[in-house]
Amino acid sequence: MEHVQETDTDRTPGRATVRDLAARLGLSAATVSRALNGHAHVAEETRRRVREAADRLGPAAPAVSSPRPQPRGNGPVLLRCPYELTDYFGPIVSSVAETLRLHGREVLLDAGGAGYHDAVLRRLPARRDVAGAVLVLPPEEPSDLEALRAAGLPFVVIDPRVPVPRGVLAVSAANSSGAHEATAHLTGLGHRRIGVLTAAPVLAAGEARMTGHVSALAAVGALVEPELVRGGEPVAATGHLLGGELLDLPGRPTAIVCFNDKMAVGVLQAAAERGLRVPDDLSVVGFDDIDVSRATTPQLTTVRQPLQELGRLAVSSLVRLLEGHQAEALHIELATQLVVRGSTGPVPGQEARRR
Amino acid sequence: MEHVQETDTDRTPGRATVRDLAARLGLSAATVSRALNGHAHVAEETRRRVREAADRLGPAAPAVSSPRPQPRGNGPVLLRCPYELTDYFGPIVSSVAETLRLHGREVLLDAGGAGYHDAVLRRLPARRDVAGAVLVLPPEEPSDLEALRAAGLPFVVIDPRVPVPRGVLAVSAANSSGAHEATAHLTGLGHRRIGVLTAAPVLAAGEARMTGHVSALAAVGALVEPELVRGGEPVAATGHLLGGELLDLPGRPTAIVCFNDKMAVGVLQAAAERGLRVPDDLSVVGFDDIDVSRATTPQLTTVRQPLQELGRLAVSSLVRLLEGHQAEALHIELATQLVVRGSTGPVPGQEARRR
Repeated sequence: MEHVQETDTDRTPGRATVRDLAARLGLSAATVSRALNGHAHVAEETRRRVREAADRLGPAAPAVSSPRPQPRGNGPVLLRCPYELTDYFGPIVSSVAETLRLHGREVLLDAGGAGYHDAVLRRLPARRDVAGAVLVLPPEEPSDLEALRAAGLPFVVIDPRVPVPRGVLAVSAANSSGAHEATAHLTGLGHRRIGVLTAAPVLAAGEARMTGHVSALAAVGALVEPELVRGGEPVAATGHLLGGELLDLPGRPTAIVCFNDKMAVGVLQAAAERGLRVPDDLSVVGFDDIDVSRATTPQLTTVRQPLQELGRLAVSSLVRLLEGHQAEALHIELATQLVVRGSTGPVPGQEARRR
Repeated sequence: MEHVQETDTDRTPGRATVRDLAARLGLSAATVSRALNGHAHVAEETRRRVREAADRLGPAAPAVSSPRPQPRGNGPVLLRCPYELTDYFGPIVSSVAETLRLHGREVLLDAGGAGYHDAVLRRLPARRDVAGAVLVLPPEEPSDLEALRAAGLPFVVIDPRVPVPRGVLAVSAANSSGAHEATAHLTGLGHRRIGVLTAAPVLAAGEARMTGHVSALAAVGALVEPELVRGGEPVAATGHLLGGELLDLPGRPTAIVCFNDKMAVGVLQAAAERGLRVPDDLSVVGFDDIDVSRATTPQLTTVRQPLQELGRLAVSSLVRLLEGHQAEALHIELATQLVVRGSTGPVPGQEARRR
């Protein structure tokens, strides 16, 4: 056996070793090991190269040494959600708080936009009174999450903004299949020219949803037209603006999928201003199934996110870590549900042909 | 001076003494003092009688001895909001959390419906690590709040469900003037037959809003017609049901004021189902100005509640108590704002006369 410290399950058949990866990158095995395991004293550029190489290998990459999380007694759990608690984040946060209470855990809340840029996570390992953390859509860099994992603090990420580093436990909605189902619903109604409004800050979810959209189009032999894809803040005003741009194109889309209900509300308004009837002239699909989706006329067809379940599952996963168990799965995806309401209908051309 | 212990500012001119009140009620001064100051060992019936007598006296009632709150160091503040954090409670909770953070205070969160019936407040005085509390729409009885005050724990109530006991600090929206403004807007448009949907669980706010509604009607010489007033859960389904009942009355109202935006969304749906155009045939007003009020067609005229400001002001008041100061005002009301959008218009009859 070499005297370079290999990660724990490194000799698994079919898996590259740290040494293989080091040779490929022209780095020392010790450096690769430190980079993989999120230790300090690794240059950011080196860390990035190692991470990218490991990501390319996928399941064949060397396992990271998941330090068995250190149970820290019955202290409170930090719940960080540095956003205003709207009807998207609110249900997640109340579900996390409620479930932690059922497990006899107290919750230290860090919520509201004022803490967005605060380096809370860097100070966290030194907080011996805090037992663990639930991070909702953390704005931090992957290296911060890696450092937290390396410090042995049990934590779980809900709805990661970017793909989480290997070894970090994450819970999210099945964004790809949810978006696939939404677009497949539209292609089933004959739509091919479909606009997309992505919600910019949720990068990982947005990419996954885009993948689902692309695959649903591919299933009927259609391709995404780049001019029909726009992104912005997940608010109604953005939907109104970007939706209006799509509707003003020479060959306007017959349907628009929004990766957020509030943007879909804005699209409905843009359509109404142009005298377009929904769903006769334009179909609109949202994502989330928050209250606004049932307040519009017509009500929105949308993809329901299991917000309460995300919170509950994050907590039950965290509690296992708090009890000193290893995580069973590192990334848990919860099924979404397509809710068909009045905002989607047959593609206009088809309707015309039927008449 | 008598040897019965009087409350601190008891000999203020124009104010009744504990002894006066005791004589009037046929109780001992000691009992009245204990009841007023929220001490244990007072029968609930006696407590109620004393409270009612004191309430009738208003500012002339004996002052309660506000125990100077005991500063408890820099421990966390309990934030109790035993409801799902929707886009009503969510902004309040994130604003409280954010403001406490700015004051260097940590937040222990108790949120979600599961804790609604939990006797958290009774256990709170024994929690020496907790510095104070913010209670959002507390479901507890006034006697629980009295006991908490008597125990010297600094706390503040946001949006009280029932009138808070004397000596308890509370922050709420100016519900009465907000509702007055909404109804005055309608009477200004010629409406007299105005339906009201109250949101049942918010009793204190609901009563204050009803007072505002009644006074606005009175200002134009109109009276409330009891058959036009209904109450229920503050959700769209209730607005749909109760709004439908009002619209099916032989002499249906020309306008409906809802003390909650979600109920107003339901009323819009009930109107659409009956072929009534808003605002041509029916005017609808909401309360809160949450997201749904801008998602409807037409958008809702509504009364904006200063949710973030409620949270900020509650915290700055609490921080004064935490620092050992007395509260300057016991009940703080924050101004609301009438936001006129498309759901209100002239009374149909007037329109007809104009044609």
